[in-house]
Amino acid sequence: MKNPYEELEELFKRMDALSGALSMLYWDMSAMMPPGGVDSRSEQLAVLKTLHHSMMTDPVMPDLIEGAEYDQNLDVWEQANVKEMRRRWVHAAAVEPDLVEALSKASSKCETIWRQARQDADFKSVLPSLEEVLNLTRKEAHSKSEKLGVSAYDALLDQYEPDGRAAEINVVFSDLKSFLPNFLDDVLTKQAAGPDNLPLVGQFPTSKQKELVQKFMTVLGFDFEHGRLDESLHPFCGGTYDDVRLTTRYDETDFSSALMGVLHETGHAMYDQGLPKRWRGQPVGADRGMSIHESQSLLIEMQVCRSAEFLQFAVPLMKDTFGINGPEWEIENIIRLYTKVEKDFIRVEADEVTYPAHVILRFELEQAAIEGDLQMSDLPDAWNEGMEKLLGITPPSDREGCLQDIHWYDGAWGYFPTYTLGAMTAAQLFARAKADKPEILESIAKGNFEPLMSWLIMNVHSKGCSLSTKDLITSATGEPLNAKYFKSHIQNRYLIG
Amino acid sequence: MKNPYEELEELFKRMDALSGALSMLYWDMSAMMPPGGVDSRSEQLAVLKTLHHSMMTDPVMPDLIEGAEYDQNLDVWEQANVKEMRRRWVHAAAVEPDLVEALSKASSKCETIWRQARQDADFKSVLPSLEEVLNLTRKEAHSKSEKLGVSAYDALLDQYEPDGRAAEINVVFSDLKSFLPNFLDDVLTKQAAGPDNLPLVGQFPTSKQKELVQKFMTVLGFDFEHGRLDESLHPFCGGTYDDVRLTTRYDETDFSSALMGVLHETGHAMYDQGLPKRWRGQPVGADRGMSIHESQSLLIEMQVCRSAEFLQFAVPLMKDTFGINGPEWEIENIIRLYTKVEKDFIRVEADEVTYPAHVILRFELEQAAIEGDLQMSDLPDAWNEGMEKLLGITPPSDREGCLQDIHWYDGAWGYFPTYTLGAMTAAQLFARAKADKPEILESIAKGNFEPLMSWLIMNVHSKGCSLSTKDLITSATGEPLNAKYFKSHIQNRYLIG
Repeated sequence: MKNPYEELEELFKRMDALSGALSMLYWDMSAMMPPGGVDSRSEQLAVLKTLHHSMMTDPVMPDLIEGAEYDQNLDVWEQANVKEMRRRWVHAAAVEPDLVEALSKASSKCETIWRQARQDADFKSVLPSLEEVLNLTRKEAHSKSEKLGVSAYDALLDQYEPDGRAAEINVVFSDLKSFLPNFLDDVLTKQAAGPDNLPLVGQFPTSKQKELVQKFMTVLGFDFEHGRLDESLHPFCGGTYDDVRLTTRYDETDFSSALMGVLHETGHAMYDQGLPKRWRGQPVGADRGMSIHESQSLLIEMQVCRSAEFLQFAVPLMKDTFGINGPEWEIENIIRLYTKVEKDFIRVEADEVTYPAHVILRFELEQAAIEGDLQMSDLPDAWNEGMEKLLGITPPSDREGCLQDIHWYDGAWGYFPTYTLGAMTAAQLFARAKADKPEILESIAKGNFEPLMSWLIMNVHSKGCSLSTKDLITSATGEPLNAKYFKSHIQNRYLIG
Repeated sequence: MKNPYEELEELFKRMDALSGALSMLYWDMSAMMPPGGVDSRSEQLAVLKTLHHSMMTDPVMPDLIEGAEYDQNLDVWEQANVKEMRRRWVHAAAVEPDLVEALSKASSKCETIWRQARQDADFKSVLPSLEEVLNLTRKEAHSKSEKLGVSAYDALLDQYEPDGRAAEINVVFSDLKSFLPNFLDDVLTKQAAGPDNLPLVGQFPTSKQKELVQKFMTVLGFDFEHGRLDESLHPFCGGTYDDVRLTTRYDETDFSSALMGVLHETGHAMYDQGLPKRWRGQPVGADRGMSIHESQSLLIEMQVCRSAEFLQFAVPLMKDTFGINGPEWEIENIIRLYTKVEKDFIRVEADEVTYPAHVILRFELEQAAIEGDLQMSDLPDAWNEGMEKLLGITPPSDREGCLQDIHWYDGAWGYFPTYTLGAMTAAQLFARAKADKPEILESIAKGNFEPLMSWLIMNVHSKGCSLSTKDLITSATGEPLNAKYFKSHIQNRYLIG
């Protein structure tokens, strides 16, 4: 006879296998599936999701969880496991199945309309669908808000950033918000006065790019026995912990986009591959949430791979791979290219100095929308005013404005702040890693990532979600998350360096 | 409120989506998955299979099926659909879950040991596992035998060949068995007296082979909007009707093996893609069973693609693709190469004249084993005696003997006869197609497969399993399955032609 905890482990292991299957089918849909497979794939995904949801909301679940919570014999990891089980159960059970289905259908429909609307820069055509998604999302937020005992917005945020609270995020974001405008002006002035950047013009065959990025993945420690690299329109890191599926997109006139994209996704992948093997398939063995996940990709892409030390190692490899040379391939020039700051409309193309402004805008707007203080019909104006205020620029059309990101149209409200939380966490972690192991940078310059990776595995990856985000950051860096390290990182890189 | 039939359609649609997901995960495991993914993949497959089995054996099922059987308002397709639903339910419910699980575990274990045993030509090392698999399979056979009201062997055969009966198969196989030995001698004598075959020696880059086989797939009508071609160690045709995943393996010194392999699998794929769209996801919309499926691949590979007409069209394309020429590329030489007959030990490498002997041997042995008349410890001797009697050769070791095929070790008893049933069905269908449409062969010589394919779609593919195998063959060809057409096909090709 199994005790409640053992029964829960069994049930969650089965749900994890189901999630793994879903993950693989999503990867396949993006990277492999021929277009005609979409209808049967949608059926498959819907059936698996329904099965997962009904396993999660099985009537036995609350009693089992309560039973396990009273169990005095659990060790700390098992206790943390039960905590995560409850969290998942509360999120799943808080919403009526009808609302889950309505939201899923409305989001799918809205996403499809949005793709066309973005192309046509026609916000009005997607407005009714977006209103429906927001309306249903607010219902979801209120259901979850009651069960979680937090505000409606925080209930959504909690899905991506467990225990994340807008009030606390506001504190660190305010710090950035007051710091960034003047800082940005100073950087732009400094960069304008510096030497011109020579662009890396050329033809970069896909096969060569693939060779190059796989080399870097290997150097970073990506385990190809437990993962693959493929192509998809929208690059991502998917699959399961044991079988990480990373994707990118190649542009034969610009290898840097695939390179930086792969380095970013490899940061995510290393986190997945480094999660505690002992807890595979259990909630406590999963990643800690989106901000920590993003911190791992940004630590690699931004902190490490745009540094002089990394480029010292990387540039000769680039030149070798493409058999190319010239003044534009001087390390100094490439550093300038990879750290160029620019006020631009598009978040996904933004540099690390202007990126927080993009996120803060969305964070403020989505809070207002969920609280009922912003009507979707007013979104384009609110967006444009915000851009003007934060970056001093106004998008030429809604395509470069409030239509640019999929998130809201797809129902992912409460996700945006995790990007900038991730950037700040990355800076704080990297600062501490370098303090703990002063050899990290010089090793990277030699193509040796072991000192950095072993620090990350020990202090972040191997923790799974045995600690809360806050405790994880404090235990790794000795202090709670704050903007200090991010600010000092960009000061060093963009003004002092 | 739904009636029983409507409820069943809903349930079977969900099960079909689950099977589709399983199919994709199997494809991925063979064609994409890195080796380290095997543990989590096994978990995923086991969980999905268990869910499928419990949906199929849901206690509501027998009442719903009975209700639908009494429904007077169903059309013939719906009635056929209910018949297939009952068939699937009987097979699933006939065996206790414990036995299903034991058999699945024993087969996995035995298959693993078999891979090593085959390599080492060491039958003894796999004997205990094989005995366990056979023992459990016999239990399964007896459970199903009771429920289906057929013999134990027929109950297994019925899984692959619905309504197939050993007694009926024996009639047509006996015909072949008495015909083939003398015929084979005549063919060997004739071929020995003919001109020497010049081998197609050369380097055939994988990329070029891929280009070539994709050209042929397209010409045959394979719809790349609803399918892909990839590589795997053991080529197969998988995926779903809407998204057919075909695989092959390339040998750069011998393009013919990939070519013929792909043509064979394309025959399977065309069947899947041609199944009735109206009945997607319902049992009646599925293929009719293994012998009809194999008839479609053999019709393409053997009947069509080793014919003078096809090679008239194909050889210039081969020469063009590889940029190669010489006397060995004369059509007459290639025809001789592709229709070379040889007594050999290995079934999967056998030509169409000796192939039936390989199947008849296995068919006889597996019946004896299931009936308890053959102990597994006596299998190697029984095998070697059979080979000596049927083909006059004795395998040098069990690797080329009773260890060569995965089927028994993997628990697939009752499968083998479908290969030769498929070959005979292919000959009978092709003869009738040519009689109905005399332009078929000359169109193929011009690379136009439309006349043949439209005949196959109309008479075979579009029927799904609305008819039994027998009725399907009779409706398509005007007579029940018999060996006449196969015999006359090989007489024409190997003695007269």
